[in-house]
Amino acid sequence: MEGFLDLDLDRASRRGAPEAVLCDAKSVEQVHEIAATYARLAAEGREDLGPVLFTRADEARAEAVLAALPDASHDPSARFLAWPAAPPAPSGGLVIVACAGTSDLPVAREAELTARHLGRPTTLIADIGIAGLHRLQSRLPELREAACVVVAAGMDGALPTVIAGQIPAPVVALPTSVGYGVAAGGVTAALTMLSACAPGIGVVNIDNGYGAGHLAAQIARWAPAPE
Amino acid sequence: MEGFLDLDLDRASRRGAPEAVLCDAKSVEQVHEIAATYARLAAEGREDLGPVLFTRADEARAEAVLAALPDASHDPSARFLAWPAAPPAPSGGLVIVACAGTSDLPVAREAELTARHLGRPTTLIADIGIAGLHRLQSRLPELREAACVVVAAGMDGALPTVIAGQIPAPVVALPTSVGYGVAAGGVTAALTMLSACAPGIGVVNIDNGYGAGHLAAQIARWAPAPE
Amino acid sequence: MEGFLDLDLDRASRRGAPEAVLCDAKSVEQVHEIAATYARLAAEGREDLGPVLFTRADEARAEAVLAALPDASHDPSARFLAWPAAPPAPSGGLVIVACAGTSDLPVAREAELTARHLGRPTTLIADIGIAGLHRLQSRLPELREAACVVVAAGMDGALPTVIAGQIPAPVVALPTSVGYGVAAGGVTAALTMLSACAPGIGVVNIDNGYGAGHLAAQIARWAPAPE
Amino acid sequence: MEGFLDLDLDRASRRGAPEAVLCDAKSVEQVHEIAATYARLAAEGREDLGPVLFTRADEARAEAVLAALPDASHDPSARFLAWPAAPPAPSGGLVIVACAGTSDLPVAREAELTARHLGRPTTLIADIGIAGLHRLQSRLPELREAACVVVAAGMDGALPTVIAGQIPAPVVALPTSVGYGVAAGGVTAALTMLSACAPGIGVVNIDNGYGAGHLAAQIARWAPAPE
Amino acid sequence: MEGFLDLDLDRASRRGAPEAVLCDAKSVEQVHEIAATYARLAAEGREDLGPVLFTRADEARAEAVLAALPDASHDPSARFLAWPAAPPAPSGGLVIVACAGTSDLPVAREAELTARHLGRPTTLIADIGIAGLHRLQSRLPELREAACVVVAAGMDGALPTVIAGQIPAPVVALPTSVGYGVAAGGVTAALTMLSACAPGIGVVNIDNGYGAGHLAAQIARWAPAPE
Amino acid sequence: MEGFLDLDLDRASRRGAPEAVLCDAKSVEQVHEIAATYARLAAEGREDLGPVLFTRADEARAEAVLAALPDASHDPSARFLAWPAAPPAPSGGLVIVACAGTSDLPVAREAELTARHLGRPTTLIADIGIAGLHRLQSRLPELREAACVVVAAGMDGALPTVIAGQIPAPVVALPTSVGYGVAAGGVTAALTMLSACAPGIGVVNIDNGYGAGHLAAQIARWAPAPE
Amino acid sequence: MEGFLDLDLDRASRRGAPEAVLCDAKSVEQVHEIAATYARLAAEGREDLGPVLFTRADEARAEAVLAALPDASHDPSARFLAWPAAPPAPSGGLVIVACAGTSDLPVAREAELTARHLGRPTTLIADIGIAGLHRLQSRLPELREAACVVVAAGMDGALPTVIAGQIPAPVVALPTSVGYGVAAGGVTAALTMLSACAPGIGVVNIDNGYGAGHLAAQIARWAPAPE
Amino acid sequence: MEGFLDLDLDRASRRGAPEAVLCDAKSVEQVHEIAATYARLAAEGREDLGPVLFTRADEARAEAVLAALPDASHDPSARFLAWPAAPPAPSGGLVIVACAGTSDLPVAREAELTARHLGRPTTLIADIGIAGLHRLQSRLPELREAACVVVAAGMDGALPTVIAGQIPAPVVALPTSVGYGVAAGGVTAALTMLSACAPGIGVVNIDNGYGAGHLAAQIARWAPAPE
Repeated sequence: MEGFLDLDLDRASRRGAPEAVLCDAKSVEQVHEIAATYARLAAEGREDLGPVLFTRADEARAEAVLAALPDASHDPSARFLAWPAAPPAPSGGLVIVACAGTSDLPVAREAELTARHLGRPTTLIADIGIAGLHRLQSRLPELREAACVVVAAGMDGALPTVIAGQIPAPVVALPTSVGYGVAAGGVTAALTMLSACAPGIGVVNIDNGYGAGHLAAQIARWAPAPE
Repeated sequence: MEGFLDLDLDRASRRGAPEAVLCDAKSVEQVHEIAATYARLAAEGREDLGPVLFTRADEARAEAVLAALPDASHDPSARFLAWPAAPPAPSGGLVIVACAGTSDLPVAREAELTARHLGRPTTLIADIGIAGLHRLQSRLPELREAACVVVAAGMDGALPTVIAGQIPAPVVALPTSVGYGVAAGGVTAALTMLSACAPGIGVVNIDNGYGAGHLAAQIARWAPAPE
Repeated sequence: MEGFLDLDLDRASRRGAPEAVLCDAKSVEQVHEIAATYARLAAEGREDLGPVLFTRADEARAEAVLAALPDASHDPSARFLAWPAAPPAPSGGLVIVACAGTSDLPVAREAELTARHLGRPTTLIADIGIAGLHRLQSRLPELREAACVVVAAGMDGALPTVIAGQIPAPVVALPTSVGYGVAAGGVTAALTMLSACAPGIGVVNIDNGYGAGHLAAQIARWAPAPE
Repeated sequence: MEGFLDLDLDRASRRGAPEAVLCDAKSVEQVHEIAATYARLAAEGREDLGPVLFTRADEARAEAVLAALPDASHDPSARFLAWPAAPPAPSGGLVIVACAGTSDLPVAREAELTARHLGRPTTLIADIGIAGLHRLQSRLPELREAACVVVAAGMDGALPTVIAGQIPAPVVALPTSVGYGVAAGGVTAALTMLSACAPGIGVVNIDNGYGAGHLAAQIARWAPAPE
Repeated sequence: MEGFLDLDLDRASRRGAPEAVLCDAKSVEQVHEIAATYARLAAEGREDLGPVLFTRADEARAEAVLAALPDASHDPSARFLAWPAAPPAPSGGLVIVACAGTSDLPVAREAELTARHLGRPTTLIADIGIAGLHRLQSRLPELREAACVVVAAGMDGALPTVIAGQIPAPVVALPTSVGYGVAAGGVTAALTMLSACAPGIGVVNIDNGYGAGHLAAQIARWAPAPE
Repeated sequence: MEGFLDLDLDRASRRGAPEAVLCDAKSVEQVHEIAATYARLAAEGREDLGPVLFTRADEARAEAVLAALPDASHDPSARFLAWPAAPPAPSGGLVIVACAGTSDLPVAREAELTARHLGRPTTLIADIGIAGLHRLQSRLPELREAACVVVAAGMDGALPTVIAGQIPAPVVALPTSVGYGVAAGGVTAALTMLSACAPGIGVVNIDNGYGAGHLAAQIARWAPAPE
Repeated sequence: MEGFLDLDLDRASRRGAPEAVLCDAKSVEQVHEIAATYARLAAEGREDLGPVLFTRADEARAEAVLAALPDASHDPSARFLAWPAAPPAPSGGLVIVACAGTSDLPVAREAELTARHLGRPTTLIADIGIAGLHRLQSRLPELREAACVVVAAGMDGALPTVIAGQIPAPVVALPTSVGYGVAAGGVTAALTMLSACAPGIGVVNIDNGYGAGHLAAQIARWAPAPE
Repeated sequence: MEGFLDLDLDRASRRGAPEAVLCDAKSVEQVHEIAATYARLAAEGREDLGPVLFTRADEARAEAVLAALPDASHDPSARFLAWPAAPPAPSGGLVIVACAGTSDLPVAREAELTARHLGRPTTLIADIGIAGLHRLQSRLPELREAACVVVAAGMDGALPTVIAGQIPAPVVALPTSVGYGVAAGGVTAALTMLSACAPGIGVVNIDNGYGAGHLAAQIARWAPAPE
């Protein structure tokens, strides 16, 4: 591991959250070496070894992780692996991740898995969009129970504002790169979310499901458990 | 009038709409000269002289118009004058202009006055925003009666999408320059409107109340009159 | 269909237009599942099942639709499928879709098919550009008969302004991503269209042929039928 | 109040936070009318009347508020007024607002006052910047006690990342328009904050001190009180 | 003149065009000192002293020039001064400067005066816009006689393409900062002109009337004189 | 040829230049059909049939042209074909196309071939860059003989300014997409060229070698032939 | 000084350079208080008190400094004050600051004064631009003697590349906000400088004369003194 | 070598640095021809032939170089070749290249190799990021010994500011294209670096490891050798 990576093993104590490895900016070999280091440290009986998340892992990088840590959990659609496989017992308030439809699901799922592996109870709502308000309104009672709601949206990115205006909990706005034309790449969605008229919204980077889930887990940490 | 302006007097026959004079790109003297030309032609008994609208007229330019055409109507908040003062008898379907609040009112009012002076029945709804859906929903029955709805919005510009998803009529989305930070100048609102998930939306330039009202009047031309 | 998609079957009653499925943001499997759901509901004799459009469908997604709905119509160049295959009997005013040439044709055709399947009589004019005004002028009598004209243009996007200045009907400006250099991706065309000097233009997102056709069909709804 | 404003009096029950009036997008007269309405409703003994905040109020608009509500509190540097003047008794976790220096103070102060009037205990730290890490490090023990830290920064906007990497609580990143050259207007700061490598950061609009304070108050709501 | 300016007196021999002094980036004192240097050199009988143009001169700077060179010519609307006052006898082909209306006139006039003082016969056409093609077409015979046409346009900037497609001479496209919304500042006009479908167009900087006139004069240099 | 293309055969008489077919925005089939139409019209003895250029033709499109017009000339590096193969006898002034090195050569060559097939004598200088002024200066005598110089440059795009400041002829500035980082895609080069301090520069779209050569040929039309 | 500012008095020992106070982001009162603190500390005989620079000081802020530190030196055109007034004895290599003309002089002078007060010998060359290469070339022998050259340029920003290609020393590229049209605000100049083909260039923020002078002084620190 | 490339063999004498060949903008054949020319000139005994660097060479281009110059050194991860293989004996001060992690390593390594082949002693530090300040601080003593530090960073690009604020040497800020969302392509990192609050930073183009290493080697040239 010398020369290119220094595992941040004390991060759990400093920040209260496990380490995460952003895989798509690393080579397959580098990803494998990191996973193997964790396997070796575990085999050596290291006690302060926290859980570790592997994010944005394509098929090749996921295989590299699983080759070293075969008992890791893996969600291919979210490009997400966690080791150990099981999330901790849930504590704190409910994190709901909401999105409008099928296209935003992978990023929304990454946010949900992150929050769950950071210890929160989570729910995913995948079919509310602002073009059909009746769907949103039928879900409002549920949304009002959350300690934090992550709202993933591409295209016009207007969904977080609409939800934030209806609930007491903070909203983590997660722009996605789903879109075309002036919405391509997600910048329009990010601008819309930053410009939201309703207060109570914090925005993360485009497609940053991990960051959204991490922030939501921090926000919901002290809230009462859902009934 | 030689050398710098050639009145487009046959526009009414070619396009079915009166001429409009965009005042803020002209000097006070030029605005006055145009108004005086209309006054002179009327005094000469010219018959094909249609109505004329003066838009984006600040106080000085409005005075220049009124000095030549003292019987023109003038709405200072909308920076709008019309001559003759009275709009034609309403025909066609209802045009509703909607906005979220006080800041967007001047541009919304410019749109409404334009549509009215192009001959449509009009209504202005000035207090519906997406941060409080209950206000929007209480107005839906009214909005569903319109032949065309102009929706003016600054900041995140999300209101047109929400309305378009709930009504059968076309929506003219009118971004306004109301906003600050990444929403300053109205570009974010314009991008949001172009990116709307809901179909049935046509976008005009930022703060182009005249263009929005003109388009709405054209759209509502053939629709049945409101009951 | 649970968990990721909730068909908006009451959209026809709420908005007066059939549902549309944007295929390129969905997986082949998801597209197939949606088409199969329609097939199943039809087989069950469901009565309120409106027509459905599948847009932006590449070859694989089109095959997925046709596997479930073999009697759907399919225009590969426009990446468009409709089920049932036949459009409704035309009603309302004429929608003309105009573009400058071969490159803009796929998007223009998507707009035309959408308007036709929403019930309007349609015509496509594919060879008028502003670099050769004689072509445009020879088509003006025809364009002046339309209840709405969709104008698709890439590169400098100037065609909608020129046409809007010559006709009484509203123009739906449809920027396309055809272009290179500063025109790449269609943003310059979209900016030009929003900046048009002539009133009577509503702009939709780049390459949004479906949205343009939908808006045009709404606009032409009440206009008299073409002679 | 008819025609242009409909007070959102049920917002406190729906969202758990008082109404806020964004003053700089309203005329002096409109601001006065809103304040006078609150005064009148209070005089009439209305019981469900929550507190109200007036934000982005320049001198003229602040005077308009004070003319109607003379017992409101007023912080001119933060352009902020609150009525009733006293914040509620503090509950929930500590909100710390941090900034690098004098230029960011007005926006930082707006955030702090908002959080305080939404009921949180607050502290302002105004002299930590990343160009001198020793100042930041001497404040880390204090920062690690917070339930939420709002970090205001202009220019390169790098401070939130540095702080977020050292503490367990969520960070609300508040870009300010302080800067020149490529940093003018605050867009660079906003981009930097969205791009932060450290998780646990939610970004609000440039200069949106109110939104940052509101979000921080929501986040800290359930956290244990500071010792 | 030491220390801050070194007159480029051999420019006429090197480039075949007089020196030009861009006034708005200089202080009033600096402009005066330059003009006074020319006056002194002329008084000393210097023979190779070419003509000199002062561009973008506001009232104060124009007075500073005239104080030193009282016999210079001055066009306040174009913010342009020339010394000696009289342009050289015309040679080469005709330069036509065309624009759509009153707003673009100052920049168009700057272009015309520059071309004239560089020795070309010039004409200004100020009332052709693409929203009314009839005006443009009535001028086509005249435009087809030009050796070079400068076309100034703001807003959508589409006029140069339309003209270039109809004439054999090169077009110098001169975007102006006239516009609002997405057209504010002239960037949209510049992008449109660079994206023109018709070949035969060279674009200069926004509001650079001097550069456009200079380029046109160079282009028309060898062309036959107009009849 | 019906329905999608209407050959602009009168363009030569209207504009004095042959038709050009932009191939990369057309399908291989469409390119072939256009070429075949020319072949057929020639076989029918049509007399007013001017030469035709095929630009931006990749290998497949070039083969489609050559299949129909086997005697066309073809420069694969410039992606350029001309039919008839031989350019007209040179007339007018010399067009020099200059660039800094190997990367800009394809676009520079497209410009040169266009100017040559429009009838001008041409030269290509491919090794002058501003990082080594000695190369540029050794070529100045040659450059000063040109009637027009096309300067192609990517990266910082500064070469046209340097050359324009040293020669009497107009410069056509041709930005190329060669570059990386902030220079990627050519926008920085285009901005630099529009911002040039030296007058006498007209800018075309990025990578628009055809447009640059066309404009240069028009500019040099009346100039004296090189010695 | 409590609450808003904590003087960075150990910066000289940590970074080897005096403290600088950026005045335009502070109120007049705050600037005065800082200057007064230095005066008081000096009166108290504090020994480790380094020199201090006040940058971007308009007239009011300069007066506030001089009121507290009447023996500071002040260059109004550069908006720069230094206390103590005299720079240290020069050491290290020569720093040359070069610019094209009068408009860039204030920023260039700020850079020169900064480098001088950080202890370097400095020269200012104010009349070399790329539009007239002869001026630049006559200065090359002088430029080749420098240990570092700061090149300030607005508009197209091409001068640093040209100079860097001719000399062995590093170039600090200093974009200025001088310009109009697409060059307005200095972004184009900054992009050009970042895109320079010649290596050996480091770019600072637009109008950041202080930063450029500081960097140049650091670079020239170890170089031999000029002869 | 005729027609497309003129080796800049006197660059070493003029600029004091070897020639560099940017490979990715050249064809494989062109790269090979350049390398072969060097081989031939060396075989002919040419004495003034300096070393040559080949940068941004992918596998195919690297093979083309090695086919002609088989004894060149090659670092595939940095896409870098040098001939002769051995760098000169180190002279001048220490150049440290620092980056946050594995993703920025290729560009950081290119910078290091360039500085080494220009004759400086170099060190690479690859594991310091601002999200974990403890890593950075443990390296500060080493960083304070450098004559120049190159800091490569993607995403938010905040590392150079933090380092520059802690050391006396100049920092060359090297933005990398590592990132996603609003950080994609490296523009955000470049903006952050230009906006740095700490003085002493010069920025190069995104991913321009060669330029950064070149500048660092120039800066460190006169500094004392490391102990």
